[in-house]
Amino acid sequence: MVILDGKATSDKIKLEIAQMVKERVEAGGKRPHLAAILVGNDGASQTYVGHKERACSQVGFKSTLHRFPAEITQDELIEIIHEINENDDIDGLIVQLPLPAHLDEDAVINAIDPCKDVDGFHPMNVGKMTLGLPTFLPATPYGILRLLSEYGIETKGKHCVIIGRSNIVGRPLANLLSLKDDPGDCTVTICHSHTKNIEFFTRQADIIIAALGSPGFVKGDMVREGAVIVDVGITRVADSTKKNGYRLLGDVDFETVAPKASYITPVPGGVGPMTIVSLMVNTLKAAECKKRK
Amino acid sequence: MVILDGKATSDKIKLEIAQMVKERVEAGGKRPHLAAILVGNDGASQTYVGHKERACSQVGFKSTLHRFPAEITQDELIEIIHEINENDDIDGLIVQLPLPAHLDEDAVINAIDPCKDVDGFHPMNVGKMTLGLPTFLPATPYGILRLLSEYGIETKGKHCVIIGRSNIVGRPLANLLSLKDDPGDCTVTICHSHTKNIEFFTRQADIIIAALGSPGFVKGDMVREGAVIVDVGITRVADSTKKNGYRLLGDVDFETVAPKASYITPVPGGVGPMTIVSLMVNTLKAAECKKRK
Repeated sequence: MVILDGKATSDKIKLEIAQMVKERVEAGGKRPHLAAILVGNDGASQTYVGHKERACSQVGFKSTLHRFPAEITQDELIEIIHEINENDDIDGLIVQLPLPAHLDEDAVINAIDPCKDVDGFHPMNVGKMTLGLPTFLPATPYGILRLLSEYGIETKGKHCVIIGRSNIVGRPLANLLSLKDDPGDCTVTICHSHTKNIEFFTRQADIIIAALGSPGFVKGDMVREGAVIVDVGITRVADSTKKNGYRLLGDVDFETVAPKASYITPVPGGVGPMTIVSLMVNTLKAAECKKRK
Repeated sequence: MVILDGKATSDKIKLEIAQMVKERVEAGGKRPHLAAILVGNDGASQTYVGHKERACSQVGFKSTLHRFPAEITQDELIEIIHEINENDDIDGLIVQLPLPAHLDEDAVINAIDPCKDVDGFHPMNVGKMTLGLPTFLPATPYGILRLLSEYGIETKGKHCVIIGRSNIVGRPLANLLSLKDDPGDCTVTICHSHTKNIEFFTRQADIIIAALGSPGFVKGDMVREGAVIVDVGITRVADSTKKNGYRLLGDVDFETVAPKASYITPVPGGVGPMTIVSLMVNTLKAAECKKRK
């Protein structure tokens, strides 16, 4: 059993990006610049944005954080997005989700210039992804593909079972892994809350991607010997023995699944760091794109 | 075994549309107008466009056919699309595919105003579809959903196996049927040329959608008793006994599959007519949308 070390892999990719940024700046180019919008005071959102800012600084990007109180109106927020769209110094823009309930997430994401949408959430970019056209791929799926690729895991002709159909993980992965591409060319089954007998499907899988947000959902007896296991789950569970008061649990019961797996991602240190570094890759791409204009 | 009669169902829907158009025109509204672009002299393309024009006339739409020689340049074609985009009398625009090899299909489709893209092929509309947002659904998948719905076939929690991953049939169906919607909420498996042992998957299926373009591919022994069978295949095979010199064959071997199926679409007269009527539904929707502007 091999651990798919997202931490080490993402560190390696960060060094590569940092080198590219260094060369770019030495050649007189501009430092890539990622802008993040954070609305309200959600603890997890603040932590995620903090991780992204730190990653920017590690690879030599400029980053700016635009914070607003939870009471901001939809019109105000969209006006700010339009300003950032027009700002030539900013290459990429992310709006940290979820937004407070009075804001329409779809309308907010639609307002982002697709050329700066480094999260890959804009319908134009989602459409290009579905069609297999070049675009910004959403960070978590992109990070998973890269991790499989870095470990030389063959996907062609494999049966990949995805648990969860969210617009940011399960659904894009189902699209990407079924494309004629590498990684890709999988037979893909997408399971969700209405799937009867999920273990019937997971037991067939060469590759299982668990992205449902239910700690320890995938147990050893649901997995066949030699399967590749990717755990996207990252649920905070209260834990008074931890300094920050919680620990992170994946969707996979590592204890019982790991012994049967050929490869498995840990939580934390698997998919999480790959997600953040993928956002960096997209931001660099956005900066390079603009350069070519 | 029940035949899913696409011909009769589409006729019924056409009557409904014709009635809506009549009321619209009587109320002083404009007749919906579908424009089609046809490049070159491909026989099948001419037939398909002819069917669409006839359907327009049956439901009371205005239609215009813009024909160009195969030698038209990319720039000329895109200029024409821009003119149609700007033409307020035209509600919907389709470009009949395939285009001659020197034309870039992606660029041509990207040039269509997404609000007039009644084929649902523009990346913006594909993205909205993938995300489950309201949009023009591509006609064949939309027609299949409508047919299942008209016959009251439950999809929630069913295992749907799709054979074929094209951007106009297999891939959008996989997205639509896995959405939290009705029809929808299926566990979906998408199979294709790199799937090993396709019969392993088809034998599990509650619903099989065959869209690979290989006549008679799905045989009786690949199907479990009681499955719902949707045959999207429509391949022209030379047949000197036919007046037009060919007959149409589906991807399903009807003789051996039908006795095991609970429901099955015939070829012709199944998915084909549903595709064309769905284009009419989209065109009416485009006209209604504009009215609201």
